[in-house]
Amino acid sequence: MKSNVAVIGAGSWGTALANLLSENGNQVKIYARDAEVVNSINKENLNYKYFPEHKLNNNLTAYNNLDDCLRNTEVVVISVPTSAVKEVLKTSQDLISQDTIIVSTAKGIDENSFKTNSEMIKELGFNNVVVLSGPTHAEEVMEKLPTAIVSAAKSKKAAEKVQDLFMSKYFRVYTNPDVKGVELGGALKNVIAVASGICDGLDYGDNTRAALITRALNEMSHFVNYHGAKTMTLAGLSGMGDLVVTCTSMHSRNRRFGIEIGKGKTLAEAKDEVKQVVEGVKTAKAIYKWLNSKDRELEMPITKEVYQVLFEGKDPEQAVEELMLRTKKHEMESVVDNSLWNI
Amino acid sequence: MKSNVAVIGAGSWGTALANLLSENGNQVKIYARDAEVVNSINKENLNYKYFPEHKLNNNLTAYNNLDDCLRNTEVVVISVPTSAVKEVLKTSQDLISQDTIIVSTAKGIDENSFKTNSEMIKELGFNNVVVLSGPTHAEEVMEKLPTAIVSAAKSKKAAEKVQDLFMSKYFRVYTNPDVKGVELGGALKNVIAVASGICDGLDYGDNTRAALITRALNEMSHFVNYHGAKTMTLAGLSGMGDLVVTCTSMHSRNRRFGIEIGKGKTLAEAKDEVKQVVEGVKTAKAIYKWLNSKDRELEMPITKEVYQVLFEGKDPEQAVEELMLRTKKHEMESVVDNSLWNI
Repeated sequence: MKSNVAVIGAGSWGTALANLLSENGNQVKIYARDAEVVNSINKENLNYKYFPEHKLNNNLTAYNNLDDCLRNTEVVVISVPTSAVKEVLKTSQDLISQDTIIVSTAKGIDENSFKTNSEMIKELGFNNVVVLSGPTHAEEVMEKLPTAIVSAAKSKKAAEKVQDLFMSKYFRVYTNPDVKGVELGGALKNVIAVASGICDGLDYGDNTRAALITRALNEMSHFVNYHGAKTMTLAGLSGMGDLVVTCTSMHSRNRRFGIEIGKGKTLAEAKDEVKQVVEGVKTAKAIYKWLNSKDRELEMPITKEVYQVLFEGKDPEQAVEELMLRTKKHEMESVVDNSLWNI
Repeated sequence: MKSNVAVIGAGSWGTALANLLSENGNQVKIYARDAEVVNSINKENLNYKYFPEHKLNNNLTAYNNLDDCLRNTEVVVISVPTSAVKEVLKTSQDLISQDTIIVSTAKGIDENSFKTNSEMIKELGFNNVVVLSGPTHAEEVMEKLPTAIVSAAKSKKAAEKVQDLFMSKYFRVYTNPDVKGVELGGALKNVIAVASGICDGLDYGDNTRAALITRALNEMSHFVNYHGAKTMTLAGLSGMGDLVVTCTSMHSRNRRFGIEIGKGKTLAEAKDEVKQVVEGVKTAKAIYKWLNSKDRELEMPITKEVYQVLFEGKDPEQAVEELMLRTKKHEMESVVDNSLWNI
């Protein structure tokens, strides 16, 4: 069952997904704002900006015009930054029927309401939203390296439709009904990537990183649970999987930013060095404010320390020491089954 | 509350733990089979074999004789390989009172019975066993890099006693009552480290490793659950934490072995290359046999593929492709809450 698909956004991720869908035999149109990108895709079969060395599938057609791109499509993949999602969909509202499956691929949350992308898309009147999220560098998908990802939707039918569209011998898709859990994992992990970078900047080792990732998952689960999502989702690809990739790869700008902080740079200097938006900084600030605003007793010690290092000039080594010497704990405070102990 | 502690075994891990305990102000004796090691610790304050460049704490005394080492100790830390644990404790049985806390630090399981080290120690009549396990390279503990670990025991009092003994500003200890879950995590992860190495040997990327680690945790949870331990324990330091460290670090010989296999070497050639015992090979074989012996329907596809690559000459690329193209799945087949779907 092949489909007509439009991919909105020809950045690295949009291009990789469009190419994959096209290889799988679907009719794929891709929208790019940049006319040069449209030209290079249509005339040379490549996206000169992001993948100058990868030939794209022949069948892929690029458009500079949303109207043409969206005509007769059953599935629309949104691959623009979180900040642009609303605007793009408002512009296209009349061009997309309500039956259309909208595939949301941006990772991020609204920093005031903690609304996720799929929630914002639903507010615009689209009901059939599927979230695609996981540990996936676009470069590696272009190179056909084995990759796994989650297709999350309240509608099982929609989640499975998207699973079918994308699944290939190097791209394995799992479905999951916990849409919010999947989306929160992708947003929260950026704060931890900053923390992981800070530890690397301080020349800490593998032990430290493993401890950080594990304890981070624990504190992420407090937040996810509070917001009505499933903590088990964090044990999956969009939680732990994405966290591992972001905390170990130099592809992650949040981690690269953290490394500069760990080396003693200020917030401004580190931002200058990385030259891109560092989502983890904004998310740390949003969560810290939220925790303090209503005296919420959610335990999120790593996020708090990251905030204090970034915004209150706390010495990173001091922050790590305080994390190490906090009150002694049982490993899974919130879930531990006390009946397991023989007191 | 300082204690008299004996550490049996002066390999890298035993030495690092003895040194840490001594720094924390305890009276620590360490037993080494090798008289040269005993001499270098007592005369030069260093273990010339494992840490020739790290001065050990002054207070640490080494013994070549179990009798002297074990006299008047409240806590005995066992730091010898799994295969030697029984023998050492049998020899020492008359020297250790039954009240003594035995701290078990070897990671491994009996390949026939799947009994864990703590279970084997209990069979010898010791009732107060505490397991210490987590993502911890000895080298990094010697360098005082921040590290976190789990102290697991059925007795809360014993687990907390061990927590108190080891906790320091660079070594954070969490307690957990799920002793078997903690021990199985440390053993099962070695199979996955081999798989991770195979993927690296095939030049796969970060996406592949993140997918592997995440899905591995899922299949480990099937095994852990079958054996009556808690799957949530795998989300902790001794499960996910140890898995992350083993799959990303060149310190791991299981991973280094897997890399050779991924590059096309045979089992024998790869073993020759690594020159040390590769626990993951034995564990993969044991689990595979166990799965087949009674037609158990536990889903452990990664372990099965590792076995077939190692022992049946299966092409590793073929194995990965089969993993990618298995029946389409929901992400958390066994735990997914079906009421979450709007069908």
